[in-house]
Amino acid sequence: MRINDVRNEAPLVLCITNDVVKNFTANGLLALGASPIMAADPQELDELIQHCGAVLINIGTLSAAVIPSIETAIQSANRHAVPVVLDPVACGATAFRKNFCLKLLHHYDISVIRGNASELQSLLSAAEMKGTDSDMTLNTSAIARAAGLHFSTAVVVTGREDAVCVDGQVMKLTNGTPMLTKVTGGGCLLGAIVSAFIYNEVKPTLSMLTEAVSWYNIAAERAEQLDNGTLPGHFQMNLLDMLQDTGENDIVENMRAEEVK
Amino acid sequence: MRINDVRNEAPLVLCITNDVVKNFTANGLLALGASPIMAADPQELDELIQHCGAVLINIGTLSAAVIPSIETAIQSANRHAVPVVLDPVACGATAFRKNFCLKLLHHYDISVIRGNASELQSLLSAAEMKGTDSDMTLNTSAIARAAGLHFSTAVVVTGREDAVCVDGQVMKLTNGTPMLTKVTGGGCLLGAIVSAFIYNEVKPTLSMLTEAVSWYNIAAERAEQLDNGTLPGHFQMNLLDMLQDTGENDIVENMRAEEVK
Amino acid sequence: MRINDVRNEAPLVLCITNDVVKNFTANGLLALGASPIMAADPQELDELIQHCGAVLINIGTLSAAVIPSIETAIQSANRHAVPVVLDPVACGATAFRKNFCLKLLHHYDISVIRGNASELQSLLSAAEMKGTDSDMTLNTSAIARAAGLHFSTAVVVTGREDAVCVDGQVMKLTNGTPMLTKVTGGGCLLGAIVSAFIYNEVKPTLSMLTEAVSWYNIAAERAEQLDNGTLPGHFQMNLLDMLQDTGENDIVENMRAEEVK
Repeated sequence: MRINDVRNEAPLVLCITNDVVKNFTANGLLALGASPIMAADPQELDELIQHCGAVLINIGTLSAAVIPSIETAIQSANRHAVPVVLDPVACGATAFRKNFCLKLLHHYDISVIRGNASELQSLLSAAEMKGTDSDMTLNTSAIARAAGLHFSTAVVVTGREDAVCVDGQVMKLTNGTPMLTKVTGGGCLLGAIVSAFIYNEVKPTLSMLTEAVSWYNIAAERAEQLDNGTLPGHFQMNLLDMLQDTGENDIVENMRAEEVK
Repeated sequence: MRINDVRNEAPLVLCITNDVVKNFTANGLLALGASPIMAADPQELDELIQHCGAVLINIGTLSAAVIPSIETAIQSANRHAVPVVLDPVACGATAFRKNFCLKLLHHYDISVIRGNASELQSLLSAAEMKGTDSDMTLNTSAIARAAGLHFSTAVVVTGREDAVCVDGQVMKLTNGTPMLTKVTGGGCLLGAIVSAFIYNEVKPTLSMLTEAVSWYNIAAERAEQLDNGTLPGHFQMNLLDMLQDTGENDIVENMRAEEVK
Repeated sequence: MRINDVRNEAPLVLCITNDVVKNFTANGLLALGASPIMAADPQELDELIQHCGAVLINIGTLSAAVIPSIETAIQSANRHAVPVVLDPVACGATAFRKNFCLKLLHHYDISVIRGNASELQSLLSAAEMKGTDSDMTLNTSAIARAAGLHFSTAVVVTGREDAVCVDGQVMKLTNGTPMLTKVTGGGCLLGAIVSAFIYNEVKPTLSMLTEAVSWYNIAAERAEQLDNGTLPGHFQMNLLDMLQDTGENDIVENMRAEEVK
């Protein structure tokens, strides 16, 4: 399974992510067995990215100052065939975020968009699809399919249930726990985990993405079941523990995934 | 009680805070039941702040780069009648910090100043009150009253005992534990908590501030009493747990507050 | 022992460190008993540093924006005889990092370089020593000696075993646990700890550095031995706990150090 490949390879994942979650993201990647690098100066990005398995772009604290770093990183990743994962955090909240995400999606090769249902729907609405898709508000599978088709990328959508879409094929994933929303960076870390799982693959497969999301959600379920796992301090600690401890067998025994036609 | 209103409303609290405590602040607000947003680009602040219940400004890592963000945020908050809480971290340590805080206090509407006794005293000293108030060094109630009068804001002062002042009325609050000083951001998080408690109220009441400080301190007392709660790693985790777990009954049973005439 | 001096004095340690580890570094210094300050605006650095016991420079997320802050901080520290510790994170990965570190080492007084074996070797290689020292790849003691001689600083090198060098005298230190590499900032925090231990001493002694590294490693060994200490979430929490709890007796009983001739 891919989890074992990730752990054997320990891919470098360059993260340009938001100021709130850098530490938690780095610790989550280490617990998985990947190697995080946080760097943002345009002068050194190409030298770093040529050795990377993936690049994560998370706009949670987007600023004018970091935009040149993000664009330089994506250009470098595209040049070296390193996959890029985009996490369009809160892109529906401001024109600044939405316009920037749409620019990235239109000008560069993005391998995966990883967002929650409202973020993905916001990107689609901005693209004038609001009228025809007004019924998909809570349907992550439909949103994943529509976004994948529109932006020609793989898509991971999280919500009450999660969905992944690659080339029009959609899987609905129902592991996980609402505790992931009680800790800041629970979704952001999934973006980093997806990046690690797709290392070296600019065209990730449906099974890679399905496994990444399921593995993360199963680790979260186990974290919640440990002592005091419904309290946020313990849950955060337990999650890092379970990210190290959760492996192939846990996925095989616990994964709940079904294709959505 | 206000704690229940906060949890029902889940107000958005936009935090421009220091680089050290962003994650802890976000997790603390989530544990309370509020919704943190960390953003700082002037291009999007107004769009975000019009939906916010409160704005927190914490100058712990003040820099020339963040000053336009802070001023834009406060102007927007003032325009939309969103309350602003100012945490003047270490404002007595440098002219850069002190002058910036005084500028904010003189040019904008600040609903609450939240600082420790020496920070508040430093702001007052800068305002030429050192001579007449030299005896209040350790008296948080006197400092709260003097600062509230001088700056025409509500004031929350922390120290060996805490004090809040609204319109000249002062409450002395004696819950809490010194463990809050063994974890970085223990005071900064209180500033964020106060922001959440006063959501939508540019003129917060004495009871709102009293309840915010007491609730936080009681959660900290409970965190200290749990397993290994006098060790800083456990205390930090326990505190996040207890911020979720502490509610109306805990406040009613444990609050120690008395008016200071 | 020095640990007691540090705890009695509670020296201020100004940290210009990377974005990933600021919170963990501050909490680690607090647990030791030192006083962290994170600040970076050139306008206030001199005012702060004149009161500091040490300055830590960690280039883990080096950017053009922070370079003036770093140089201002070191100039101020040199002027006030405050020791500077340099942590050249990943300096071998890019020319940007390596050239900047070499510039600092050549133009300013650095009291201690704290890095892992490959970082130190990279600085030496850049200095044209690769040919003659190709056999020292895994020998931290040899790297420490060579770097100390070449850069005329004290050196702390971490790796499978650790080594410190002052004026050509080298100690090999064999406490510690690989768990320190499973948590982000495990090495960065050691740089901060070393800074606190050498407070006020621009020419630190071999025994100060030996004690700093050994104390930290012994605390990490104890953290690993506690419940679930081999899982990264628990280890991180336990480490902060043990940094508060580990004292003189633990060092005396557990330190493994031997001089390397």
